[in-house]
Amino acid sequence: MENYKIIEGGVCAAKGFKASGMYCGIKENPTKKNDIAMIAADVMCSAAGVYTQNKVKGAPVIVTKNNLIKSGGKAQAVIVNSKNANTCNADGIEKAEEMCRLTADALGIKPEEVIVASTGVIGQILPIEPIKAAVPQLAKSLSYEGNNDAAVAIMTTDTVKKEYAVEFEIGGKLCKMGGMAKGSGMIHPNMATTLNFITTDCAVSPELLQKALSDIVKITYNCLSVDGDQSTNDTCMLMSSGLAENEEICTEGADFETFKAALYQVMASLTRMLAKDGEGATKLLTCVCSCAPDLDTAIIVAKSVIRSPLFKCAMFGSDANWGRVLCAIGYAEAEFDIDKVDVDLASKSGKIAVCRSGAGVDFSEEEAKVILSEDEIEILISLNQGEAQATAWGCDLTYNYVKINGDYRS
Amino acid sequence: MENYKIIEGGVCAAKGFKASGMYCGIKENPTKKNDIAMIAADVMCSAAGVYTQNKVKGAPVIVTKNNLIKSGGKAQAVIVNSKNANTCNADGIEKAEEMCRLTADALGIKPEEVIVASTGVIGQILPIEPIKAAVPQLAKSLSYEGNNDAAVAIMTTDTVKKEYAVEFEIGGKLCKMGGMAKGSGMIHPNMATTLNFITTDCAVSPELLQKALSDIVKITYNCLSVDGDQSTNDTCMLMSSGLAENEEICTEGADFETFKAALYQVMASLTRMLAKDGEGATKLLTCVCSCAPDLDTAIIVAKSVIRSPLFKCAMFGSDANWGRVLCAIGYAEAEFDIDKVDVDLASKSGKIAVCRSGAGVDFSEEEAKVILSEDEIEILISLNQGEAQATAWGCDLTYNYVKINGDYRS
Repeated sequence: MENYKIIEGGVCAAKGFKASGMYCGIKENPTKKNDIAMIAADVMCSAAGVYTQNKVKGAPVIVTKNNLIKSGGKAQAVIVNSKNANTCNADGIEKAEEMCRLTADALGIKPEEVIVASTGVIGQILPIEPIKAAVPQLAKSLSYEGNNDAAVAIMTTDTVKKEYAVEFEIGGKLCKMGGMAKGSGMIHPNMATTLNFITTDCAVSPELLQKALSDIVKITYNCLSVDGDQSTNDTCMLMSSGLAENEEICTEGADFETFKAALYQVMASLTRMLAKDGEGATKLLTCVCSCAPDLDTAIIVAKSVIRSPLFKCAMFGSDANWGRVLCAIGYAEAEFDIDKVDVDLASKSGKIAVCRSGAGVDFSEEEAKVILSEDEIEILISLNQGEAQATAWGCDLTYNYVKINGDYRS
Repeated sequence: MENYKIIEGGVCAAKGFKASGMYCGIKENPTKKNDIAMIAADVMCSAAGVYTQNKVKGAPVIVTKNNLIKSGGKAQAVIVNSKNANTCNADGIEKAEEMCRLTADALGIKPEEVIVASTGVIGQILPIEPIKAAVPQLAKSLSYEGNNDAAVAIMTTDTVKKEYAVEFEIGGKLCKMGGMAKGSGMIHPNMATTLNFITTDCAVSPELLQKALSDIVKITYNCLSVDGDQSTNDTCMLMSSGLAENEEICTEGADFETFKAALYQVMASLTRMLAKDGEGATKLLTCVCSCAPDLDTAIIVAKSVIRSPLFKCAMFGSDANWGRVLCAIGYAEAEFDIDKVDVDLASKSGKIAVCRSGAGVDFSEEEAKVILSEDEIEILISLNQGEAQATAWGCDLTYNYVKINGDYRS
């Protein structure tokens, strides 16, 4: 995509969006890291969502879905906390609804116009008192520069905040789009994001907003795997304020493609950040499967490789154990001819062919070691039986993943 | 099953089976651990097999399948090496066929009456010279007490050999059945055994031999997951010499059930040993899913929990993070009502309820810690919506798993 420009501002980059974040004390925390955030729009927005497919759904997921049904796909605010997922609790729905009511009261909107989300430990009662105390303060401190405070508040085991924003033109109008995401572990399709909020001022009809989000989730967040565990609280929301004043995009023409390309840019960039900051990760792994018979096959193969614990360990050890790549391609649940498959490994230090037509080729182990010692590795797979291509993102499996997740109730 | 007795002897326990094992030098190995084994029967046997479903199939898998077709489901010998999987090599088939020819020549049988298997690194050329030199020696040293030498020879990253045998009665005749297995990593359904050889002297028709093996694989090896990686060389062979002189089992009556129960005993015991010796494992995890609407649902749910990296890490840390159990139940691909699910955690130190009707219940964290500090943990799930039950076996995810698999070409 050539028509976009990377800009600052995260969820506040687009016109009409304020945000805030603070520490309210959902969990004892001596560093007083932010644990609650609010996003509010100056006007009523169209909102589209994609949610976890886990049968265990966090109470906030259920409440948000219901709210969007009640409001007819409209929303004006987001309230989100970390440190507690509000999932598998008998009073979960009640608490999530209360978070919406508190936010609505503070902002003078209706509860069903609020999107609620939570992330953190599953199965612990959410303390509502600190949230009750915090919401009015969050509302008061809302700011067009509040994106950083909000992005920091949704972090759990994340080591860095994830924000990204772009600007692009639609019908001569400058449009902006930005997002923030959290997630580090329990990340696997579908959906693999845990929490993600994207805002735009580009006017798009509710139907096309949902279509764009669903299409792009499929080739970005749904192609991300840190550990193969699918969270109960995954939520990806896209809100449009329409304040860029472009003519609303109501049909699937060139403007819609431009919008989708911007959305891909934002979501693919956040996906990459999530993979790179996977729990314990020392390396970003990007697997590109090309020349596949169709898109679904390309996605399935790329994801299978990215998910393989054995391959992830080999990457941690900078070991060109390509047999594990082929093994993971082989158990991918798709139909194709394994005897046509080529595999290369690459990084900024070079590229090396390790497999041709399903069999090993001679390569320099020394050269491979140099390539794999970089912190961003590409696994390039060509199925040589079609024209479809997909990318999947992941990371290596390290001692620290075990440490983080073996520690008490991480 | 009450009518069986555990006995010694592994693959040599049943009448008419000899075995041998030695070091031949397939890979440099200063400790000279055995790396090649032979099993030979005094008479022609009926043979049944179950193989990997990976599209990448080791050359020995392909050759063994072809041999059994050519021989009409008969076999008299097994030749098997470790340290090299003979997979993804251009000359793989040729080498695997040569292993059969060498064995057949040494034993005076036909090449298609030989079962061949290999395990080890994928994508490295198998050196045939050391095997050529070893086969005549293996044939010469075949012994009715050779089971240990053979069981040791198929170990790769295994820390202990796996053998098990039982005796039982069919129609007044004493029958025996024994097996050996290897496998530590790259273990996931289907099939999750890497290599497994079972011998019996009980006479069973070839059709029922295959049916028994397929039925029992489904509820034993296929319910085992160490890491979710499905090997390219998985092979489970069942050979029957018929020397127990029982009337051949040709119909699915009581005798067939007795035979299957013995087979379950052998295979479930080996499965448990494989799980307990999973790469880097400090704990055996056994997940029992009961009160499921049907067997497949019970299997899918139990396997989903056993596979979850996050839950495996929590078990390593003896952390009663039951939310991760519920999360893994929730993303299991089966249809059931999550709100009816109960979960208990247990070990020889006690049993504790952590979840009732899909929501958390109060429990003593101290008590939970004591229970989870044992080296054999049970996760007891009741779906409360039927009568089917299944067990899945796995292990915790530890630093050592990462170390073993991050090391060069492990």
